[in-house]
Amino acid sequence: MREVISFVEEDTLRTLFEPRSIAVIGVSKTPGKMGYEVLTNLVKYGFPGPIFPVNPKYAEIHDIRCYKTVLDVTEDIDLAILVSPVERIPKIMGELGAKGVKVAVVISGKRGDPSSYDIYESAQKHGIRILGPSSMGIFHIKSRLNATLGPMEVLEGGVGLVTESRTLGMALMGLATVQGVGLSAVIGLGDKLDVSESEVLSYLAEDRSTRSLVLHAESVKDRGSLKAAVEEVARRKPLVILTASDQVKEELKGLQGNLPITDDVITALDMALALSGKRIKGRSFIAVTNSGGAGKLLKGMSSDSILDLPEPGNDLIEEMRQFVPEGGNFSTNPVDITGRAGTDVYRGVLDVLMSRRDVDGVIALHCETALSDPMRFASMIYDLWDLYDKPIIPVIMGGKKALEAVLSLRRKGIPAYPTPCRALRSADSLVRWSLFSTS
Amino acid sequence: MREVISFVEEDTLRTLFEPRSIAVIGVSKTPGKMGYEVLTNLVKYGFPGPIFPVNPKYAEIHDIRCYKTVLDVTEDIDLAILVSPVERIPKIMGELGAKGVKVAVVISGKRGDPSSYDIYESAQKHGIRILGPSSMGIFHIKSRLNATLGPMEVLEGGVGLVTESRTLGMALMGLATVQGVGLSAVIGLGDKLDVSESEVLSYLAEDRSTRSLVLHAESVKDRGSLKAAVEEVARRKPLVILTASDQVKEELKGLQGNLPITDDVITALDMALALSGKRIKGRSFIAVTNSGGAGKLLKGMSSDSILDLPEPGNDLIEEMRQFVPEGGNFSTNPVDITGRAGTDVYRGVLDVLMSRRDVDGVIALHCETALSDPMRFASMIYDLWDLYDKPIIPVIMGGKKALEAVLSLRRKGIPAYPTPCRALRSADSLVRWSLFSTS
Repeated sequence: MREVISFVEEDTLRTLFEPRSIAVIGVSKTPGKMGYEVLTNLVKYGFPGPIFPVNPKYAEIHDIRCYKTVLDVTEDIDLAILVSPVERIPKIMGELGAKGVKVAVVISGKRGDPSSYDIYESAQKHGIRILGPSSMGIFHIKSRLNATLGPMEVLEGGVGLVTESRTLGMALMGLATVQGVGLSAVIGLGDKLDVSESEVLSYLAEDRSTRSLVLHAESVKDRGSLKAAVEEVARRKPLVILTASDQVKEELKGLQGNLPITDDVITALDMALALSGKRIKGRSFIAVTNSGGAGKLLKGMSSDSILDLPEPGNDLIEEMRQFVPEGGNFSTNPVDITGRAGTDVYRGVLDVLMSRRDVDGVIALHCETALSDPMRFASMIYDLWDLYDKPIIPVIMGGKKALEAVLSLRRKGIPAYPTPCRALRSADSLVRWSLFSTS
Repeated sequence: MREVISFVEEDTLRTLFEPRSIAVIGVSKTPGKMGYEVLTNLVKYGFPGPIFPVNPKYAEIHDIRCYKTVLDVTEDIDLAILVSPVERIPKIMGELGAKGVKVAVVISGKRGDPSSYDIYESAQKHGIRILGPSSMGIFHIKSRLNATLGPMEVLEGGVGLVTESRTLGMALMGLATVQGVGLSAVIGLGDKLDVSESEVLSYLAEDRSTRSLVLHAESVKDRGSLKAAVEEVARRKPLVILTASDQVKEELKGLQGNLPITDDVITALDMALALSGKRIKGRSFIAVTNSGGAGKLLKGMSSDSILDLPEPGNDLIEEMRQFVPEGGNFSTNPVDITGRAGTDVYRGVLDVLMSRRDVDGVIALHCETALSDPMRFASMIYDLWDLYDKPIIPVIMGGKKALEAVLSLRRKGIPAYPTPCRALRSADSLVRWSLFSTS
């Protein structure tokens, strides 16, 4: 990939992601109002620095002193979060400038509304860099910072989410949590009139708590800048693009075809989860299943993927067979260890496969049966994940116990899936990413 | 479609689905053994007729008298369920024949094993028709019959599932339940050496509790028979084919391209759920959303679908606008009623759309926000479902509350989805089915 010069203003991004103190301007005591939700998230999630709520109507809120204006705050303010009515914002920018605040997150605003430009211009005038307007806010686990409109209970993990859309962004934070995809950061770009996705991605590329990224993109501001940003970040961290925009697809068209792009939110989260885990060195996968039927579905759909599912050779067959007391079919891939196979049988066969140098990745496909204990299966997978330096992708399909087992693994950052289709698509993205990032 | 003569032996199928008494041969007291699981399911699910467990080792099991052989049972036996070791089955078939049993479900057996033919031949010799061998059993809510290896807790509903695979079948029963897809019947075809999918589908086509069908097919026994069965059933009931088999796809190739075929278990269940609900008369959909971003994703992916998403005309725009106090974008489809829209705003706009003769179906896409109450949204959708004779497809995307709201609607048979992608695919199958079934 070609060299790209990055124009990241490090200080701005650091202040945005790691503020030491925060003013929230336009707070409210009415649940459901933006000024209530953002402040409540910020306080309850446990931001460690001082918080300065601002609203002339209140003396205190959430047992914190409330200020009439930012000018009444005597301490330094690193970051301002704006949830005030749009028409008041130019005046507030003046006060922020006078107070010496350099960075603001503007949550207020209607997406794409002309008033966004007024906000941007007033910020420029006072030397303030802004994220937004119409940002959903910012979440960063490293700073214990949840200044978003999203849910309070967020699963923490290794996936960073950058989104243009405020409402979709909130839903995505919730969806990630119920899907067991832990988040390290969420950034609402909104109208991205000032701070760009390039700057945000550059920061996250270096952020240690973030292992992979999802960028939800709806539009291209400056032709070439998104492509350059993706190229630059991709050298350092896996990235999935969530978009249905022809403009965005056109912009990224020059990039190699293995960059993961999807219009499905679940696929984006699934791939980001896989990409936040172990890297893969080749494309040779062996799948193991207790259900010939499920194995056939996986095999059938693999023909559309980049994965190689080679038939096991005789030496490998002999190695695996010793762990399977009855029947089984070892000359196919997926290997069928039969519905009678318990966790111990899986463990024996999977150890063999994970140790093989000619196997790049393993899919462990387990259908819940009356005989099986999905949670035991999950903890066996967890052990293997720790032991070996190659990806193992478990699929645990069935009822409530199976779903709980999948979620328990996902919460630990292991890319487990409830269906063969989702697992295969994610394994595919692992291989494609390894090709993309080394091209 | 051409006329097909059906060779259904009605008595056999009636006995299979509506037995008055059942013998379970090869019962066990060890949890996890097939002979334990099947009997336990049968007893606990509350089969109303007499149950005769058979195993010479026990005098009773689950407080029911246990018999040494079926010949010791003095009452009539309608249906026999066999979970005995394969090698004993020919002898048991002799006893069943002597006892006058005409139909047996053979759960025992390894898929595709030569011993299956011995079982089949012994059954033929004694005039017994068999489902299987290697059947996962049979479940039918109308008869309160759960003689399967699957889970005990099954969500009841309108989808009938016919599957060749025993282990996959068990997982599918569990998966359907956690996905909120209620089942009316589950039939394990297994090796389908005798009772065929055609016979089973013909019965289910007339079964009032079954509103749509999923057929999981791995193989074609007699060329032409599967195709004929699908054609016949399709005239009476919607059908989704779950397969990754080239042989099956080749067999069905002659049929019109709108027959839903998928290799993904979730897609199969999603489409069957949609097809179990309201029929659609055209392909003109209007989508409504509180998130412009989610709307753009839906719009983008709709270009791969058969759906028509026309831009609303001026009269429709005026009708909708009165319910949306602030902003909104009505000239696009999806219509964007903004993140501020609560359930009442949705209700107003959706009522307008559901009443319009030029709108065939509606997608109501709701992103969970701090302002929204997904369960209230769900109950509003439920009211609309009752009021209008056209499909409304809700998407409720977000965290735990959103997921619960989706499941609450699904449990009532309403095709609700957690993501735009799954909803669109299912709406697509509705339109395709209407074209397929009238072609």
